[in-house]
Amino acid sequence: MINERENRSFEDVKKQAELWIREASQYIKEKMKGTLSITTKAHQHDLVTDVDQNVEKFFLDKITDKFPDHRLMGEEGSFEQIKDLEGTVWILDPIDGTVNFVHQKSNFAISIGIFHDGEPIIGLVYDVMGDELFSSLKGQGAMLNGEKLPALTKNSLNEALLSFNAGWLLKERGLEELVESSRGIRSYAVAALEMAYVACGRLDAYISFNLAPWDIAGGYALLQEVGGKATNYTGEELTFLEKDTLLAANPWIYDEILEIARKK
Amino acid sequence: MINERENRSFEDVKKQAELWIREASQYIKEKMKGTLSITTKAHQHDLVTDVDQNVEKFFLDKITDKFPDHRLMGEEGSFEQIKDLEGTVWILDPIDGTVNFVHQKSNFAISIGIFHDGEPIIGLVYDVMGDELFSSLKGQGAMLNGEKLPALTKNSLNEALLSFNAGWLLKERGLEELVESSRGIRSYAVAALEMAYVACGRLDAYISFNLAPWDIAGGYALLQEVGGKATNYTGEELTFLEKDTLLAANPWIYDEILEIARKK
Repeated sequence: MINERENRSFEDVKKQAELWIREASQYIKEKMKGTLSITTKAHQHDLVTDVDQNVEKFFLDKITDKFPDHRLMGEEGSFEQIKDLEGTVWILDPIDGTVNFVHQKSNFAISIGIFHDGEPIIGLVYDVMGDELFSSLKGQGAMLNGEKLPALTKNSLNEALLSFNAGWLLKERGLEELVESSRGIRSYAVAALEMAYVACGRLDAYISFNLAPWDIAGGYALLQEVGGKATNYTGEELTFLEKDTLLAANPWIYDEILEIARKK
Repeated sequence: MINERENRSFEDVKKQAELWIREASQYIKEKMKGTLSITTKAHQHDLVTDVDQNVEKFFLDKITDKFPDHRLMGEEGSFEQIKDLEGTVWILDPIDGTVNFVHQKSNFAISIGIFHDGEPIIGLVYDVMGDELFSSLKGQGAMLNGEKLPALTKNSLNEALLSFNAGWLLKERGLEELVESSRGIRSYAVAALEMAYVACGRLDAYISFNLAPWDIAGGYALLQEVGGKATNYTGEELTFLEKDTLLAANPWIYDEILEIARKK
Protein backbone atom coordinates (compact mmCIF):
# COMPACT_ATOMS: atom_id res chain seq x y z
CA MET A 1 0.00 0.00 0.00
CA ILE A 2 1.15 3.55 -0.63
CA ASN A 3 0.79 6.12 2.13
CA GLU A 4 -0.45 9.70 1.91
CA ARG A 5 2.98 11.24 1.41
CA GLU A 6 3.74 8.86 -1.40
CA ASN A 7 0.36 9.59 -2.96
CA ARG A 8 1.14 13.33 -3.04
CA SER A 9 4.45 12.55 -4.66
CA PHE A 10 2.68 10.38 -7.26
CA GLU A 11 0.54 13.40 -8.08
CA ASP A 12 3.76 15.14 -9.07
CA VAL A 13 4.91 12.10 -11.04
CA LYS A 14 1.60 12.14 -12.92
CA LYS A 15 1.89 15.84 -13.75
CA GLN A 16 5.44 15.32 -14.97
CA ALA A 17 4.43 12.31 -17.09
CA GLU A 18 1.63 14.34 -18.70
CA LEU A 19 4.09 17.08 -19.67
CA TRP A 20 6.44 14.53 -21.21
CA ILE A 21 3.53 12.98 -23.12
CA ARG A 22 2.71 16.40 -24.61
CA GLU A 23 6.36 16.92 -25.52
CA ALA A 24 6.65 13.46 -27.11
CA SER A 25 3.42 14.06 -29.07
CA GLN A 26 4.82 17.23 -30.60
CA TYR A 27 7.86 15.24 -31.72
CA ILE A 28 5.63 12.50 -33.18
CA LYS A 29 3.54 15.01 -35.13
CA GLU A 30 6.67 16.67 -36.50
CA LYS A 31 8.09 13.30 -37.60
CA MET A 32 4.82 12.38 -39.32
CA LYS A 33 5.38 15.19 -41.80
CA GLY A 34 8.54 13.45 -43.03
CA THR A 35 9.29 9.90 -44.12
CA LEU A 36 9.08 7.21 -41.47
CA SER A 37 11.83 4.64 -41.25
CA ILE A 38 9.93 1.38 -40.81
CA THR A 39 11.34 -2.03 -39.93
CA THR A 40 9.54 -5.30 -39.39
CA LYS A 41 9.93 -7.12 -36.09
CA ALA A 42 9.33 -10.83 -35.52
CA HIS A 43 6.12 -10.99 -37.55
CA GLN A 44 5.12 -9.43 -40.85
CA HIS A 45 2.54 -7.17 -39.24
CA ASP A 46 4.65 -6.22 -36.23
CA LEU A 47 6.05 -2.92 -37.42
CA VAL A 48 8.35 -0.59 -35.58
CA THR A 49 9.49 2.85 -36.66
CA ASP A 50 12.36 5.05 -35.55
CA VAL A 51 9.69 7.19 -33.91
CA ASP A 52 8.67 4.38 -31.53
CA GLN A 53 12.29 3.90 -30.58
CA ASN A 54 13.06 7.59 -30.16
CA VAL A 55 9.99 8.21 -28.00
CA GLU A 56 11.00 5.36 -25.71
CA LYS A 57 14.56 6.77 -25.52
CA PHE A 58 13.07 10.18 -24.68
CA PHE A 59 11.16 8.73 -21.73
CA LEU A 60 14.10 6.60 -20.60
CA ASP A 61 16.38 9.66 -20.46
CA LYS A 62 13.79 11.82 -18.71
CA ILE A 63 12.89 9.20 -16.10
CA THR A 64 16.54 8.33 -15.40
CA ASP A 65 17.30 11.99 -14.88
CA LYS A 66 14.26 13.06 -12.86
CA PHE A 67 13.31 9.85 -11.00
CA PRO A 68 16.56 7.85 -10.75
CA ASP A 69 15.00 5.18 -8.49
CA HIS A 70 12.17 4.46 -10.98
CA ARG A 71 12.58 1.78 -13.63
CA LEU A 72 11.16 1.65 -17.18
CA MET A 73 9.66 -1.33 -18.96
CA GLY A 74 9.16 -0.20 -22.55
CA GLU A 75 8.19 -1.99 -25.73
CA GLU A 76 11.33 -1.06 -27.65
CA GLY A 77 14.03 -2.79 -25.61
CA SER A 78 13.74 -1.33 -22.12
CA PHE A 79 11.69 -4.35 -21.07
CA GLU A 80 14.66 -6.68 -21.17
CA GLN A 81 15.97 -5.63 -17.75
CA ILE A 82 12.61 -5.88 -15.97
CA LYS A 83 11.92 -9.24 -14.33
CA ASP A 84 9.77 -8.06 -11.40
CA LEU A 85 7.60 -5.08 -10.42
CA GLU A 86 9.33 -4.08 -7.16
CA GLY A 87 9.52 -0.37 -6.43
CA THR A 88 8.18 2.07 -9.03
CA VAL A 89 8.04 0.82 -12.61
CA TRP A 90 6.84 2.78 -15.64
CA ILE A 91 5.31 0.44 -18.21
CA LEU A 92 5.41 2.29 -21.52
CA ASP A 93 4.19 1.77 -25.03
CA PRO A 94 5.70 4.72 -26.91
CA ILE A 95 3.28 4.19 -29.80
CA ASP A 96 0.46 1.73 -29.29
CA GLY A 97 -1.16 0.94 -32.63
CA THR A 98 1.96 1.22 -34.78
CA VAL A 99 0.22 -0.18 -37.87
CA ASN A 100 -2.41 2.58 -37.57
CA PHE A 101 0.36 5.13 -36.99
CA VAL A 102 2.13 4.09 -40.20
CA HIS A 103 -0.94 3.45 -42.35
CA GLN A 104 -3.56 5.85 -41.02
CA LYS A 105 -1.51 8.56 -39.37
CA SER A 106 -4.19 8.48 -36.67
CA ASN A 107 -5.73 6.06 -34.17
CA PHE A 108 -2.55 5.49 -32.14
CA ALA A 109 -1.69 6.32 -28.54
CA ILE A 110 1.10 6.82 -26.04
CA SER A 111 0.34 4.51 -23.12
CA ILE A 112 1.90 4.61 -19.65
CA GLY A 113 1.03 2.62 -16.54
CA ILE A 114 3.04 3.48 -13.45
CA PHE A 115 3.05 0.66 -10.90
CA HIS A 116 4.36 0.64 -7.33
CA ASP A 117 5.25 -2.73 -5.85
CA GLY A 118 3.04 -4.37 -8.45
CA GLU A 119 0.05 -2.11 -7.84
CA PRO A 120 -1.26 0.23 -10.59
CA ILE A 121 -0.97 3.85 -9.35
CA ILE A 122 -1.09 6.02 -12.48
CA GLY A 123 -2.72 5.40 -15.86
CA LEU A 124 -2.13 7.60 -18.90
CA VAL A 125 -3.40 6.91 -22.41
CA TYR A 126 -3.09 9.72 -24.95
CA ASP A 127 -4.75 9.66 -28.38
CA VAL A 128 -2.18 11.85 -30.12
CA MET A 129 -4.19 12.88 -33.19
CA GLY A 130 -7.58 12.89 -31.46
CA ASP A 131 -6.09 14.96 -28.60
CA GLU A 132 -7.81 12.92 -25.91
CA LEU A 133 -5.88 12.32 -22.69
CA PHE A 134 -7.25 9.61 -20.43
CA SER A 135 -5.58 9.76 -17.02
CA SER A 136 -5.98 8.30 -13.54
CA LEU A 137 -4.40 8.36 -10.11
CA LYS A 138 -5.14 5.60 -7.63
CA GLY A 139 -8.02 6.52 -5.35
CA GLN A 140 -8.74 9.77 -7.16
CA GLY A 141 -10.65 8.50 -10.19
CA ALA A 142 -10.06 8.71 -13.91
CA MET A 143 -10.35 11.72 -16.19
CA LEU A 144 -10.78 12.43 -19.90
CA ASN A 145 -9.18 15.77 -20.81
CA GLY A 146 -9.58 16.93 -17.22
CA GLU A 147 -13.22 15.90 -16.82
CA LYS A 148 -13.90 13.16 -14.31
CA LEU A 149 -15.22 9.90 -15.75
CA PRO A 150 -18.22 8.46 -13.89
CA ALA A 151 -18.09 4.94 -12.45
CA LEU A 152 -19.28 2.32 -14.93
CA THR A 153 -22.95 1.45 -14.61
CA LYS A 154 -24.98 -1.69 -15.14
CA ASN A 155 -25.40 -2.84 -18.69
CA SER A 156 -26.34 -6.09 -20.41
CA LEU A 157 -24.60 -7.92 -23.22
CA ASN A 158 -27.44 -7.44 -25.72
CA GLU A 159 -26.99 -3.67 -25.42
CA ALA A 160 -23.20 -3.78 -25.26
CA LEU A 161 -20.60 -2.70 -27.81
CA LEU A 162 -17.56 -4.97 -27.79
CA SER A 163 -14.23 -4.67 -29.49
CA PHE A 164 -11.87 -7.31 -30.80
CA ASN A 165 -9.96 -8.01 -33.97
CA ALA A 166 -11.96 -9.97 -36.57
CA GLY A 167 -8.98 -12.29 -36.95
CA TRP A 168 -9.65 -13.79 -33.51
CA LEU A 169 -13.02 -15.07 -34.76
CA LEU A 170 -11.14 -17.56 -36.93
CA LYS A 171 -9.15 -18.88 -33.96
CA GLU A 172 -11.66 -18.65 -31.12
CA ARG A 173 -15.05 -19.69 -32.43
CA GLY A 174 -16.58 -18.93 -29.02
CA LEU A 175 -16.49 -15.27 -30.03
CA GLU A 176 -19.26 -15.97 -32.54
CA GLU A 177 -21.70 -16.11 -29.64
CA LEU A 178 -20.56 -12.62 -28.63
CA VAL A 179 -21.14 -11.35 -32.17
CA GLU A 180 -24.65 -12.71 -32.11
CA SER A 181 -25.64 -11.65 -28.61
CA SER A 182 -24.16 -8.13 -28.41
CA ARG A 183 -25.27 -4.84 -29.93
CA GLY A 184 -22.19 -4.72 -32.13
CA ILE A 185 -18.48 -5.32 -32.61
CA ARG A 186 -15.90 -2.64 -33.28
CA SER A 187 -12.19 -2.93 -33.97
CA TYR A 188 -9.76 -0.02 -33.67
CA ALA A 189 -6.54 -2.08 -33.33
CA VAL A 190 -5.04 0.05 -30.59
CA ALA A 191 -5.32 -1.83 -27.30
CA ALA A 192 -4.54 1.06 -24.95
CA LEU A 193 -7.26 3.23 -26.48
CA GLU A 194 -9.74 0.38 -26.61
CA MET A 195 -9.23 -0.13 -22.85
CA ALA A 196 -9.63 3.62 -22.33
CA TYR A 197 -12.87 3.44 -24.33
CA VAL A 198 -14.10 0.73 -21.95
CA ALA A 199 -13.18 3.03 -19.04
CA CYS A 200 -15.33 5.84 -20.48
CA GLY A 201 -18.19 3.59 -21.65
CA ARG A 202 -17.73 3.99 -25.42
CA LEU A 203 -17.09 0.27 -25.43
CA ASP A 204 -18.32 -2.26 -22.87
CA ALA A 205 -15.58 -4.83 -23.39
CA TYR A 206 -12.30 -5.28 -25.21
CA ILE A 207 -10.87 -8.73 -25.90
CA SER A 208 -7.52 -9.83 -27.27
CA PHE A 209 -5.48 -13.02 -27.32
CA ASN A 210 -1.95 -11.67 -27.54
CA LEU A 211 -0.93 -8.55 -25.66
CA ALA A 212 2.21 -7.47 -23.86
CA PRO A 213 2.32 -5.61 -20.50
CA TRP A 214 3.00 -2.26 -22.24
CA ASP A 215 -0.16 -2.61 -24.35
CA ILE A 216 -2.39 -2.84 -21.31
CA ALA A 217 -0.73 -1.29 -18.22
CA GLY A 218 -2.05 2.25 -18.76
CA GLY A 219 -5.57 1.11 -19.61
CA TYR A 220 -5.57 -1.31 -16.68
CA ALA A 221 -4.82 1.50 -14.22
CA LEU A 222 -7.63 3.62 -15.74
CA LEU A 223 -10.12 0.77 -15.44
CA GLN A 224 -9.42 0.31 -11.70
CA GLU A 225 -10.64 3.84 -11.07
CA VAL A 226 -14.04 3.47 -12.76
CA GLY A 227 -14.90 -0.01 -11.48
CA GLY A 228 -13.88 -1.85 -14.64
CA LYS A 229 -12.48 -5.37 -14.62
CA ALA A 230 -9.50 -6.74 -16.52
CA THR A 231 -8.01 -10.22 -16.38
CA ASN A 232 -6.81 -12.65 -18.98
CA TYR A 233 -9.54 -14.31 -21.08
CA THR A 234 -9.86 -17.23 -18.68
CA GLY A 235 -10.37 -14.94 -15.69
CA GLU A 236 -6.89 -15.12 -14.14
CA GLU A 237 -5.03 -12.09 -12.82
CA LEU A 238 -2.62 -10.35 -15.19
CA THR A 239 1.06 -10.42 -14.15
CA PHE A 240 2.33 -7.49 -16.28
CA LEU A 241 5.55 -9.47 -16.76
CA GLU A 242 4.64 -11.56 -19.79
CA LYS A 243 2.31 -11.69 -22.79
CA ASP A 244 -1.22 -12.85 -22.09
CA THR A 245 -4.81 -12.81 -23.34
CA LEU A 246 -7.13 -10.05 -22.17
CA LEU A 247 -10.73 -9.46 -21.19
CA ALA A 248 -11.21 -5.84 -20.11
CA ALA A 249 -14.81 -4.86 -19.46
CA ASN A 250 -17.62 -3.15 -17.66
CA PRO A 251 -18.01 -5.46 -14.61
CA TRP A 252 -21.50 -6.66 -15.53
CA ILE A 253 -20.48 -7.41 -19.11
CA TYR A 254 -17.28 -9.01 -17.81
CA ASP A 255 -19.28 -11.62 -15.94
CA GLU A 256 -21.50 -12.38 -18.95
CA ILE A 257 -18.53 -12.76 -21.29
CA LEU A 258 -16.50 -14.87 -18.88
CA GLU A 259 -19.43 -17.25 -18.56
CA ILE A 260 -19.53 -17.65 -22.35
CA ALA A 261 -15.71 -17.97 -22.54
CA ARG A 262 -15.70 -20.74 -19.95
CA LYS A 263 -18.42 -22.76 -21.70
CA LYS A 264 -16.16 -23.33 -24.71
CA MET B 1 -23.11 15.79 -68.26
CA ILE B 2 -23.09 19.10 -66.47
CA ASN B 3 -21.79 22.20 -68.23
CA GLU B 4 -19.46 24.88 -66.93
CA ARG B 5 -22.20 27.21 -65.74
CA GLU B 6 -23.85 24.40 -63.84
CA ASN B 7 -20.49 23.46 -62.33
CA ARG B 8 -20.02 26.98 -60.98
CA SER B 9 -23.47 26.85 -59.51
CA PHE B 10 -22.63 23.50 -57.88
CA GLU B 11 -19.68 25.21 -56.22
CA ASP B 12 -22.21 27.48 -54.55
CA VAL B 13 -24.39 24.52 -53.62
CA LYS B 14 -21.36 22.87 -52.02
CA LYS B 15 -20.46 25.96 -50.01
CA GLN B 16 -24.05 26.27 -48.84
CA ALA B 17 -24.21 22.59 -47.87
CA GLU B 18 -21.00 22.94 -45.86
CA LEU B 19 -22.47 25.84 -43.90
CA TRP B 20 -25.61 23.85 -43.16
CA ILE B 21 -23.47 20.91 -42.01
CA ARG B 22 -21.67 23.18 -39.55
CA GLU B 23 -24.99 24.53 -38.31
CA ALA B 24 -26.49 21.05 -37.91
CA SER B 25 -23.35 19.89 -36.07
CA GLN B 26 -23.73 22.65 -33.50
CA TYR B 27 -27.30 21.52 -32.93
CA ILE B 28 -26.19 17.88 -32.57
CA LYS B 29 -23.50 18.78 -30.03
CA GLU B 30 -25.99 20.82 -28.00
CA LYS B 31 -28.48 17.95 -27.99
CA MET B 32 -25.81 15.49 -26.86
CA LYS B 33 -25.55 17.34 -23.57
CA GLY B 34 -29.17 16.44 -22.80
CA THR B 35 -31.10 13.19 -22.88
CA LEU B 36 -31.65 11.61 -26.28
CA SER B 37 -35.06 10.29 -27.17
CA ILE B 38 -34.30 6.93 -28.76
CA THR B 39 -36.68 4.67 -30.61
CA THR B 40 -36.07 1.34 -32.30
CA LYS B 41 -36.87 0.92 -35.98
CA ALA B 42 -37.46 -2.39 -37.76
CA HIS B 43 -34.60 -4.23 -36.06
CA GLN B 44 -33.34 -4.26 -32.48
CA HIS B 45 -30.07 -2.54 -33.41
CA ASP B 46 -31.59 -0.05 -35.83
CA LEU B 47 -31.88 2.96 -33.57
CA VAL B 48 -33.16 6.39 -34.43
CA THR B 49 -33.16 9.45 -32.22
CA ASP B 50 -35.08 12.69 -32.35
CA VAL B 51 -31.76 14.26 -33.37
CA ASP B 52 -31.59 12.22 -36.60
CA GLN B 53 -35.12 13.29 -37.45
CA ASN B 54 -34.61 16.95 -36.59
CA VAL B 55 -31.39 17.20 -38.60
CA GLU B 56 -33.17 15.76 -41.64
CA LYS B 57 -36.04 18.20 -41.17
CA PHE B 58 -33.49 21.05 -40.92
CA PHE B 59 -31.98 20.09 -44.30
CA LEU B 60 -35.39 19.53 -45.88
CA ASP B 61 -36.54 23.02 -44.87
CA LYS B 62 -33.28 24.67 -45.97
CA ILE B 63 -33.15 22.90 -49.34
CA THR B 64 -36.84 23.55 -50.08
CA ASP B 65 -36.34 27.22 -49.33
CA LYS B 66 -33.00 27.83 -51.08
CA PHE B 67 -33.06 25.28 -53.91
CA PRO B 68 -36.75 24.64 -54.61
CA ASP B 69 -36.05 22.52 -57.70
CA HIS B 70 -33.74 20.13 -55.76
CA ARG B 71 -35.14 17.03 -54.11
CA LEU B 72 -34.06 15.30 -50.87
CA MET B 73 -33.71 11.58 -50.26
CA GLY B 74 -33.06 11.24 -46.54
CA GLU B 75 -32.92 8.30 -44.18
CA GLU B 76 -35.67 9.53 -41.89
CA GLY B 77 -38.67 9.54 -44.21
CA SER B 78 -37.73 11.88 -47.05
CA PHE B 79 -36.72 8.86 -49.15
CA GLU B 80 -40.29 7.74 -49.63
CA GLN B 81 -40.99 10.22 -52.43
CA ILE B 82 -37.80 9.49 -54.41
CA LYS B 83 -38.16 6.81 -57.10
CA ASP B 84 -35.58 8.11 -59.58
CA LEU B 85 -32.50 10.38 -59.66
CA GLU B 86 -33.64 12.88 -62.32
CA GLY B 87 -32.56 16.48 -61.77
CA THR B 88 -30.65 17.36 -58.62
CA VAL B 89 -31.12 15.05 -55.65
CA TRP B 90 -29.53 15.41 -52.22
CA ILE B 91 -28.98 11.98 -50.65
CA LEU B 92 -28.65 12.56 -46.91
CA ASP B 93 -27.87 10.56 -43.84
CA PRO B 94 -28.43 13.06 -41.03
CA ILE B 95 -26.49 10.85 -38.60
CA ASP B 96 -24.60 7.92 -40.05
CA GLY B 97 -23.51 5.61 -37.24
CA THR B 98 -26.49 6.17 -34.95
CA VAL B 99 -25.46 3.35 -32.58
CA ASN B 100 -22.07 5.04 -32.12
CA PHE B 101 -23.83 8.38 -31.68
CA VAL B 102 -26.00 7.00 -28.89
CA HIS B 103 -23.43 4.74 -27.24
CA GLN B 104 -20.10 6.45 -27.86
CA LYS B 105 -21.07 10.06 -28.43
CA SER B 106 -18.42 9.99 -31.15
CA ASN B 107 -17.62 8.15 -34.40
CA PHE B 108 -20.68 9.34 -36.32
CA ALA B 109 -21.03 11.53 -39.39
CA ILE B 110 -23.35 13.70 -41.41
CA SER B 111 -23.23 12.36 -44.98
CA ILE B 112 -24.47 14.09 -48.12
CA GLY B 113 -24.13 13.06 -51.75
CA ILE B 114 -25.59 15.49 -54.28
CA PHE B 115 -26.37 13.82 -57.59
CA HIS B 116 -27.42 15.40 -60.90
CA ASP B 117 -29.28 13.18 -63.36
CA GLY B 118 -27.86 10.15 -61.58
CA GLU B 119 -24.26 11.38 -61.57
CA PRO B 120 -22.42 12.14 -58.29
CA ILE B 121 -21.45 15.83 -58.24
CA ILE B 122 -20.79 16.72 -54.59
CA GLY B 123 -19.65 14.53 -51.70
CA LEU B 124 -19.65 15.68 -48.08
CA VAL B 125 -18.88 13.51 -45.07
CA TYR B 126 -18.39 15.26 -41.74
CA ASP B 127 -17.05 13.55 -38.63
CA VAL B 128 -18.85 15.76 -36.13
CA MET B 129 -16.79 15.03 -33.00
CA GLY B 130 -13.48 14.50 -34.81
CA ASP B 131 -14.05 17.74 -36.76
CA GLU B 132 -12.94 16.25 -40.07
CA LEU B 133 -14.78 17.40 -43.18
CA PHE B 134 -14.25 15.30 -46.29
CA SER B 135 -15.60 17.09 -49.36
CA SER B 136 -15.50 16.79 -53.12
CA LEU B 137 -16.76 18.48 -56.26
CA LYS B 138 -16.83 16.59 -59.54
CA GLY B 139 -13.68 17.20 -61.55
CA GLN B 140 -12.05 19.28 -58.82
CA GLY B 141 -10.81 16.54 -56.49
CA ALA B 142 -11.53 15.71 -52.87
CA MET B 143 -10.39 17.54 -49.75
CA LEU B 144 -9.96 16.83 -46.06
CA ASN B 145 -10.43 20.01 -44.02
CA GLY B 146 -9.48 22.08 -47.04
CA GLU B 147 -6.35 20.09 -47.96
CA LYS B 148 -6.47 18.27 -51.27
CA LEU B 149 -6.36 14.49 -51.04
CA PRO B 150 -3.90 12.83 -53.44
CA ALA B 151 -5.09 10.22 -55.94
CA LEU B 152 -4.96 6.69 -54.54
CA THR B 153 -1.75 4.82 -55.33
CA LYS B 154 -0.90 1.20 -55.97
CA ASN B 155 -1.08 -1.13 -53.01
CA SER B 156 -1.34 -4.87 -52.52
CA LEU B 157 -3.76 -6.84 -50.34
CA ASN B 158 -1.06 -8.15 -48.00
CA GLU B 159 -0.24 -4.58 -47.02
CA ALA B 160 -3.85 -3.37 -47.00
CA LEU B 161 -6.08 -2.40 -44.10
CA LEU B 162 -9.69 -3.41 -44.69
CA SER B 163 -12.84 -2.61 -42.80
CA PHE B 164 -15.99 -4.61 -42.29
CA ASN B 165 -18.21 -5.63 -39.42
CA ALA B 166 -17.11 -8.87 -37.72
CA GLY B 167 -20.70 -10.07 -37.96
CA TRP B 168 -20.36 -10.50 -41.72
CA LEU B 169 -17.68 -13.16 -41.15
CA LEU B 170 -20.39 -15.45 -39.81
CA LYS B 171 -22.53 -14.99 -42.92
CA GLU B 172 -19.94 -14.70 -45.68
CA ARG B 173 -17.15 -17.17 -45.00
CA GLY B 174 -15.28 -15.87 -48.05
CA LEU B 175 -14.22 -12.93 -45.88
CA GLU B 176 -11.96 -15.28 -43.91
CA GLU B 177 -9.53 -15.25 -46.82
CA LEU B 178 -9.41 -11.45 -46.57
CA VAL B 179 -8.65 -11.66 -42.85
CA GLU B 180 -5.78 -14.00 -43.54
CA SER B 181 -4.31 -12.24 -46.56
CA SER B 182 -4.53 -8.57 -45.51
CA ARG B 183 -2.49 -6.52 -43.05
CA GLY B 184 -5.49 -6.12 -40.77
CA ILE B 185 -9.22 -5.60 -40.31
CA ARG B 186 -10.80 -2.60 -38.66
CA SER B 187 -14.43 -1.86 -37.88
CA TYR B 188 -15.77 1.60 -37.09
CA ALA B 189 -19.45 0.95 -37.90
CA VAL B 190 -20.04 4.22 -39.69
CA ALA B 191 -20.19 3.54 -43.44
CA ALA B 192 -19.85 7.12 -44.67
CA LEU B 193 -16.66 7.66 -42.66
CA GLU B 194 -15.26 4.29 -43.61
CA MET B 195 -15.69 5.22 -47.29
CA ALA B 196 -14.05 8.59 -46.58
CA TYR B 197 -11.17 6.71 -44.93
CA VAL B 198 -10.76 4.69 -48.13
CA ALA B 199 -10.71 7.98 -50.08
CA CYS B 200 -7.85 9.31 -47.92
CA GLY B 201 -5.95 5.99 -47.72
CA ARG B 202 -6.47 5.27 -44.00
CA LEU B 203 -8.29 2.16 -45.18
CA ASP B 204 -7.82 0.36 -48.48
CA ALA B 205 -11.27 -1.20 -48.68
CA TYR B 206 -14.61 -1.12 -46.92
CA ILE B 207 -17.12 -3.94 -47.30
CA SER B 208 -20.72 -4.26 -46.21
CA PHE B 209 -23.69 -6.44 -47.07
CA ASN B 210 -26.59 -4.17 -46.24
CA LEU B 211 -26.42 -0.45 -46.92
CA ALA B 212 -28.94 2.12 -48.09
CA PRO B 213 -28.26 4.90 -50.64
CA TRP B 214 -27.90 7.52 -47.88
CA ASP B 215 -25.15 5.50 -46.17
CA ILE B 216 -22.94 5.56 -49.25
CA ALA B 217 -23.84 8.48 -51.56
CA GLY B 218 -21.46 11.01 -49.97
CA GLY B 219 -18.56 8.57 -49.74
CA TYR B 220 -19.18 7.38 -53.30
CA ALA B 221 -18.84 10.92 -54.66
CA LEU B 222 -15.59 11.40 -52.69
CA LEU B 223 -14.14 8.16 -54.04
CA GLN B 224 -14.75 9.19 -57.68
CA GLU B 225 -12.40 12.14 -57.18
CA VAL B 226 -9.40 10.14 -55.92
CA GLY B 227 -9.66 7.19 -58.31
CA GLY B 228 -11.40 4.86 -55.87
CA LYS B 229 -13.89 2.21 -56.95
CA ALA B 230 -17.24 1.35 -55.45
CA THR B 231 -19.78 -1.20 -56.61
CA ASN B 232 -21.84 -3.82 -54.89
CA TYR B 233 -19.95 -6.87 -53.60
CA THR B 234 -20.45 -8.77 -56.84
CA GLY B 235 -19.05 -5.94 -58.95
CA GLU B 236 -22.32 -4.47 -60.26
CA GLU B 237 -23.01 -0.75 -60.39
CA LEU B 238 -24.84 0.82 -57.47
CA THR B 239 -28.28 2.27 -58.25
CA PHE B 240 -28.64 4.61 -55.24
CA LEU B 241 -32.34 3.74 -55.25
CA GLU B 242 -32.33 0.60 -53.12
CA LYS B 243 -30.36 -1.26 -50.47
CA ASP B 244 -27.37 -3.20 -51.72
CA THR B 245 -24.04 -4.74 -50.73
CA LEU B 246 -20.89 -2.66 -51.06
CA LEU B 247 -17.24 -3.00 -52.00
CA ALA B 248 -15.53 0.41 -51.85
CA ALA B 249 -11.78 0.31 -52.35
CA ASN B 250 -8.47 1.49 -53.66
CA PRO B 251 -8.68 0.32 -57.31
CA TRP B 252 -5.83 -2.21 -57.04
CA ILE B 253 -7.24 -3.69 -53.83
CA TYR B 254 -10.71 -3.65 -55.41
CA ASP B 255 -9.57 -6.02 -58.14
CA GLU B 256 -7.90 -8.39 -55.67
CA ILE B 257 -10.95 -8.51 -53.42
CA LEU B 258 -13.43 -8.94 -56.27
CA GLU B 259 -11.44 -11.90 -57.52
CA ILE B 260 -11.69 -13.51 -54.07
CA ALA B 261 -15.38 -12.61 -53.77
CA ARG B 262 -16.17 -14.22 -57.14
CA LYS B 263 -14.39 -17.48 -56.28
CA LYS B 264 -16.88 -18.24 -53.51
